[in-house]
Amino acid sequence: MSKRIAGPEIERLIQLLAKVPGLGPRSARRAALHLIKKKEQLFAPLSLAMGEALQKVRVCSTCGNVDTVDPCTICSDVRRDPATLIVVEDVSDLWALERAGAMNVRYHVLGGTLNPLDGVGPDDLNIAGLISRVAEGGISEVILAVNATVEGQATAHYITDQLSGLEVKVTRLAHGVPVGGELDYLDEGTLTAAIKSRTTF
Amino acid sequence: MSKRIAGPEIERLIQLLAKVPGLGPRSARRAALHLIKKKEQLFAPLSLAMGEALQKVRVCSTCGNVDTVDPCTICSDVRRDPATLIVVEDVSDLWALERAGAMNVRYHVLGGTLNPLDGVGPDDLNIAGLISRVAEGGISEVILAVNATVEGQATAHYITDQLSGLEVKVTRLAHGVPVGGELDYLDEGTLTAAIKSRTTF
Repeated sequence: MSKRIAGPEIERLIQLLAKVPGLGPRSARRAALHLIKKKEQLFAPLSLAMGEALQKVRVCSTCGNVDTVDPCTICSDVRRDPATLIVVEDVSDLWALERAGAMNVRYHVLGGTLNPLDGVGPDDLNIAGLISRVAEGGISEVILAVNATVEGQATAHYITDQLSGLEVKVTRLAHGVPVGGELDYLDEGTLTAAIKSRTTF
Repeated sequence: MSKRIAGPEIERLIQLLAKVPGLGPRSARRAALHLIKKKEQLFAPLSLAMGEALQKVRVCSTCGNVDTVDPCTICSDVRRDPATLIVVEDVSDLWALERAGAMNVRYHVLGGTLNPLDGVGPDDLNIAGLISRVAEGGISEVILAVNATVEGQATAHYITDQLSGLEVKVTRLAHGVPVGGELDYLDEGTLTAAIKSRTTF
């Protein structure tokens, strides 16, 4: 804004809201105004929730998930199968898999992928933690649920190498046609992979 | 989320973020995760800014604008022309006009439009405040910058009636082709208005 039209506290709030993913400078103003209008119903509870989450949030020292307890809710859930570990790049991937509810197991969050161009090496990721978790025993399968990108696949190969000395089965997610997807819109790589991995009907 | 995968404080934060306009359930999760990752750079400052804005924000008793002082920054700005008043439906319209920087004057925020179907009558809007501001004298022109909707125009007509006894010029925004707009995409009403109000080239 060229001229100052509101108090510095409001302008600062708009400035910071604009940095939240999903909001830009324009929608941040709209969001701030909405919050101010819904002061009791939304602004006050959200401010309180932010303060509490900010104070209590921590990274799980076992798996790298974020939670308000350490070890996290998932790591301390005794009903989960301890023999399988799903390796993901990011906490958002962990949440996505949990929403899908495909497996009742525990996770290991790498915190990114190997990326020599950006200077991300093995020591920058939570790979040593993964190796020592597997070395401790009790884990029979590691599912590498990394993204199907070049970096993701390179990371998967590196981890497989590192785990080769240990008695553990290393698997990766299947490639294929997304459920509900139309063939017409899929790239050649996915289609070729789906044909190669075809199953009996 | 079907299963609890994070502490209640994080889930509550996601729930409340999802109610912010511009964010939905999915982007609220992404936003929460981003905040948690950028704890020092974004989460902490945003939480602080929210608390401060929440505590200090108030509605200007003169014009209905929101600010951290009362009268608001605009009403107490002595460099603004006191003889003209722009009437808007909402604070967001005030902010939009200020961004445009078209006039260096003061405003009056109605807080909505007359809408009998939704039970919004003249007493639900800040119309009495407008009449008394004008009745106090010193204002020579009231610009009705309400939206070009049926409700906006009905509200404009009502206000014009109410101001008819007072010595003040009542004007409205011009209808016409938006700057940068293409005729092909405009509705007939706008085109007709633009033709009617044509000016010498």
